[in-house]
Amino acid sequence: MVRVGIIGASGYTGAELVRILSGHPQVRLTAITSRHNAGRRFDSLYPALAGCVALEFEEYSQARICDCTDIVFTALPHRLPMGIVPDLVAHGRKVIDLSADFRFNDAAAYEAAYQAHTAAPLLAKAVYGLSEVYTERIRSAEIVGNPGCYPTSVLLPLVPLIRAGLIEPDGIIADAKSGVSGAGREPALGTLFCEVNECFRPYKVGSHRHTPEMESVLGREAGRPLQLTFVPHLVPMNRGMQTTIYARPAAGATAAGIRDCLRSAYDGRRFIRLCAEEAAPDARYVRGTNFCDIGFKLDTRTNRLIVMAAIDNLVKGAAGQAVQNMNIMCGFEETAGLMAMPFPV
Amino acid sequence: MVRVGIIGASGYTGAELVRILSGHPQVRLTAITSRHNAGRRFDSLYPALAGCVALEFEEYSQARICDCTDIVFTALPHRLPMGIVPDLVAHGRKVIDLSADFRFNDAAAYEAAYQAHTAAPLLAKAVYGLSEVYTERIRSAEIVGNPGCYPTSVLLPLVPLIRAGLIEPDGIIADAKSGVSGAGREPALGTLFCEVNECFRPYKVGSHRHTPEMESVLGREAGRPLQLTFVPHLVPMNRGMQTTIYARPAAGATAAGIRDCLRSAYDGRRFIRLCAEEAAPDARYVRGTNFCDIGFKLDTRTNRLIVMAAIDNLVKGAAGQAVQNMNIMCGFEETAGLMAMPFPV
Amino acid sequence: MVRVGIIGASGYTGAELVRILSGHPQVRLTAITSRHNAGRRFDSLYPALAGCVALEFEEYSQARICDCTDIVFTALPHRLPMGIVPDLVAHGRKVIDLSADFRFNDAAAYEAAYQAHTAAPLLAKAVYGLSEVYTERIRSAEIVGNPGCYPTSVLLPLVPLIRAGLIEPDGIIADAKSGVSGAGREPALGTLFCEVNECFRPYKVGSHRHTPEMESVLGREAGRPLQLTFVPHLVPMNRGMQTTIYARPAAGATAAGIRDCLRSAYDGRRFIRLCAEEAAPDARYVRGTNFCDIGFKLDTRTNRLIVMAAIDNLVKGAAGQAVQNMNIMCGFEETAGLMAMPFPV
Amino acid sequence: MVRVGIIGASGYTGAELVRILSGHPQVRLTAITSRHNAGRRFDSLYPALAGCVALEFEEYSQARICDCTDIVFTALPHRLPMGIVPDLVAHGRKVIDLSADFRFNDAAAYEAAYQAHTAAPLLAKAVYGLSEVYTERIRSAEIVGNPGCYPTSVLLPLVPLIRAGLIEPDGIIADAKSGVSGAGREPALGTLFCEVNECFRPYKVGSHRHTPEMESVLGREAGRPLQLTFVPHLVPMNRGMQTTIYARPAAGATAAGIRDCLRSAYDGRRFIRLCAEEAAPDARYVRGTNFCDIGFKLDTRTNRLIVMAAIDNLVKGAAGQAVQNMNIMCGFEETAGLMAMPFPV
Repeated sequence: MVRVGIIGASGYTGAELVRILSGHPQVRLTAITSRHNAGRRFDSLYPALAGCVALEFEEYSQARICDCTDIVFTALPHRLPMGIVPDLVAHGRKVIDLSADFRFNDAAAYEAAYQAHTAAPLLAKAVYGLSEVYTERIRSAEIVGNPGCYPTSVLLPLVPLIRAGLIEPDGIIADAKSGVSGAGREPALGTLFCEVNECFRPYKVGSHRHTPEMESVLGREAGRPLQLTFVPHLVPMNRGMQTTIYARPAAGATAAGIRDCLRSAYDGRRFIRLCAEEAAPDARYVRGTNFCDIGFKLDTRTNRLIVMAAIDNLVKGAAGQAVQNMNIMCGFEETAGLMAMPFPV
Repeated sequence: MVRVGIIGASGYTGAELVRILSGHPQVRLTAITSRHNAGRRFDSLYPALAGCVALEFEEYSQARICDCTDIVFTALPHRLPMGIVPDLVAHGRKVIDLSADFRFNDAAAYEAAYQAHTAAPLLAKAVYGLSEVYTERIRSAEIVGNPGCYPTSVLLPLVPLIRAGLIEPDGIIADAKSGVSGAGREPALGTLFCEVNECFRPYKVGSHRHTPEMESVLGREAGRPLQLTFVPHLVPMNRGMQTTIYARPAAGATAAGIRDCLRSAYDGRRFIRLCAEEAAPDARYVRGTNFCDIGFKLDTRTNRLIVMAAIDNLVKGAAGQAVQNMNIMCGFEETAGLMAMPFPV
Repeated sequence: MVRVGIIGASGYTGAELVRILSGHPQVRLTAITSRHNAGRRFDSLYPALAGCVALEFEEYSQARICDCTDIVFTALPHRLPMGIVPDLVAHGRKVIDLSADFRFNDAAAYEAAYQAHTAAPLLAKAVYGLSEVYTERIRSAEIVGNPGCYPTSVLLPLVPLIRAGLIEPDGIIADAKSGVSGAGREPALGTLFCEVNECFRPYKVGSHRHTPEMESVLGREAGRPLQLTFVPHLVPMNRGMQTTIYARPAAGATAAGIRDCLRSAYDGRRFIRLCAEEAAPDARYVRGTNFCDIGFKLDTRTNRLIVMAAIDNLVKGAAGQAVQNMNIMCGFEETAGLMAMPFPV
Repeated sequence: MVRVGIIGASGYTGAELVRILSGHPQVRLTAITSRHNAGRRFDSLYPALAGCVALEFEEYSQARICDCTDIVFTALPHRLPMGIVPDLVAHGRKVIDLSADFRFNDAAAYEAAYQAHTAAPLLAKAVYGLSEVYTERIRSAEIVGNPGCYPTSVLLPLVPLIRAGLIEPDGIIADAKSGVSGAGREPALGTLFCEVNECFRPYKVGSHRHTPEMESVLGREAGRPLQLTFVPHLVPMNRGMQTTIYARPAAGATAAGIRDCLRSAYDGRRFIRLCAEEAAPDARYVRGTNFCDIGFKLDTRTNRLIVMAAIDNLVKGAAGQAVQNMNIMCGFEETAGLMAMPFPV
């Protein structure tokens, strides 16, 4: 039994951590914090969990958190975690950070996309928490930088293909589509119901901050820097993300070879599901789950490999993968707390 | 460990039974049938459950079902269950039927709303499976007629109030709103996306077949026949049902008395949640769960009691309550297999 | 050609006025104001209208408005119009106010539901703008208090029945369901996409401020005070409102009599459409139009008259009816500018 | 005044033609046909148009159609139009066909994607009805093959860039997203509400039949054959289409040059709207309109031109462009009947 705290538990991602961790058989959730909701019950914000979660939000206090937890999840906006994680680590707490603050080993890359990094020395020990890909490093990590939702949907299908030399590392395009919960729970014009429903639009075209995160990982795996064209879109649905990726197959790559590569890369990994031939991943099939469904089509006519992935942006794209990383770090079953049956509809 | 079969497992309700029963710790799901899909894997129809459910649909065969099951769920269209349930019961199998065929003790009432009943003698032993209300009878039932979704949302809040004499039995109005999954998985013009999305409409106004089911139960509890005005509406959402009920408070009824009545009627029953004062049930809070959330407002100005309930039409309104009934019949914890954490969003 | 200004044109209702008035053949839209957007082009807020509307928001100035307009629409939050309308009227401008400020002839009724009324003397001359019902009074009005959306959907079907004595004035219940645009364009948690989509809930149960507005009109028509039970609900759709009303038929009332009453009350009025027998109004059929569809079912079994209406909350429930009132006041065709073809899907 | 008939007016596209043509000031809609609905009123299928359209469906009869129309729109499934169009043309009727049957000048290209062409000799005189691009040819056409929805969204932005040599013709990728009405009104499992809502998926990956249509036009404009990678996706919304296109800029191409090219290509054409810099087209802004909104981003970092377009699939992607073509053929204002004000929300 491990004692767990969540710093920043009032947003959608934090609440999803509460959901998953409350049902985790080897976890005792001992503290949840919120700057704005201290003193309120969790289920007053999320009545869905009335009768299931009896926790109350508290103010963040390092002493208190160190006192009552072994592992800490930070689900705060970018910039805040780097202010509190160093102390937590110094006190021997393991940290899984869901912001971008610890996703880069290179402070300069972080700073180009975000802001000055105030805990740069810690970056060397931070491990990028792409669970199926960096399992071994995660196992012994003190700090995990949990991947962004878009990067998860792009990297899980691409890393094995890059490693195996089955695609050209240059000129990759990722056209991604996300449900609205990815934008968080802060009221904003752009996420009002009437501004999203019956709408469909690209945003941050070619300039989304997840781009350097993806390029950094893919470049590391390819052995040299590369650029990615990335365009996210907003889908009128609550949860889910579907990404369609266009790459040049390497000379000699075949559909069978690609299938074998993906299959063997993820052999025995429950959360990666390869679609049947001619089937495509649908965000609905992974809704509420930690699955990443992957499909592909080798279009020999145009010499393109079309790779498709679907995840739930709040689960495999955030809270679920974070818990999966905790499982790995703690030596639990990788799937512990994460195998609730998916809904057929 | 009980061996369970599902007759008619390809529709939304049947698939929901598969979902719940596959995750039930005391159940072995041994057979699922489908006239149209025999020989196909369940996850070829419902890819969400790939990697979670390995079952294959088979043709219905009484011998085979009796051979491999202790309890049978029938999730077929009305009229079909009465053709097969008698044999199953004769062979000692317990049956939970999710159609209307065994919801009435009185064949005439059934026949007025549906068609000739070909297994009328069995009706005497069929128990109406409103779990929290008829728990004791369900415990020893051989056949359970599982309640309709609308009746569940109306009866759970009303039965205690009727029993306690806190409302007038006459002149009750139930204005109900259901998600689209209630209409099933058969392609039909009226449930096409473009015919439901951005739409809202009443249907079967004053003539829905769930009306006699509700009147029969309420009349029994009131000790005399009564009529109910019932109007269902279709909501552009997948799952969920919210019902607003208007009744005359009995002389002397107070808000405190009503609250006490509901609280004590459902004391210790995990699936009934009473909303805080001034809060109203929202279909979202029960999505994917077996909860029934109940709220009320005593409008002294107009001398009306407004009672509101929300359920998930596929869970508490169908498959979830059916499994709850199985739990009661088998002496399991009432909540076994039914307490997956609700989603915050 | 009449010169028209819109005070408060940046919200959904104001923008809808811009849409309709920009296409009105007898109108020149000369000024639109917005406190927060002065100096910005209208189509920078509403790109849908790029190439169709070239106006720019300006600060409100009484002198400027009086200078360039003959008729003024005020689409401001309650309380603001009573601060500016008196001056406009004093300068001979006709005003159609879409807030609640001029909907009551009785200041006390307004003040009980809203706040102190600072322009009470004007209330005597304000006309309630229920277009088909108070046509004659509207024709010569200087100030029109444009009805709320919920009251429009309740009063249009009920007033003729009350006048004809076909229903009992007491004990009427209105169960109403509205699309989300009714909540306006100000960012708020409760109208975020993820807080509405796949949700359905009642709100302000028995306490919505449109209740006194409806009671006041119905009481006037019935010749004595009455109370109404009113429960609004939020539907996950952008536009549209559907209301189901439950009333006691008067002794001797028949379905044929009710149909005749409604038909003759609205004979020749293009915007009222009576549904075919057994058909029910659907919010979709009036989307984007100024129609009010009315259907009913006389449930002789329970002795209830079930009356159903559907309108577009932003059109017949707000901007459309306001323009219809302007047409009446100006002696234009009642339908001028309001007969764009409805969308089949 | 031109007399117009619609062959196949019961589907979504046909109904949209009815909507637009009924409001067209220079059109008299004299006949609408439907195999399945002959004898029924149009508004019994589409009650939204009750009180606006009084037409009745009839069986198709060539004699009758030739007798009462000058121009005929055929909105039938592929394969049917080639059976009736030759006769209509032989009788001097101008035809605008909304199926694929007359979109190719080359029968072999059609036959590779569809089936044997039984009216191949007519293909030489059929004009591809991309209104803004082939205006002059359309003006004198006897038969117009109205473009598919996806091709319209791809070709309108690309043709000027190809013609100007600003992009490389090879390796273009179009990632397109469509609302559900594009799938038509025939009941099918895949377009049921619960199978689309809260879902997002690619389909017909690399194999959609609109691909050869696009390649044929782009190849003609480029002066040599080319291949396009095309992946359509289904969006949970009724109407609308948004396409994101990835192309290699030609050497020396600049953002200013691209903007100038698009601006001058569509100078004076009301239905093409160029988005402001940094703005992206949203399907919502063109909903219900004949607009095609075009935006782009020259990503110099990855040397990609990202071009984005949005149309309403039923209007500019089908019925609206068809009427625009009729306007051109008849010498009417290009915008006649097509400039209803867009909805702000």
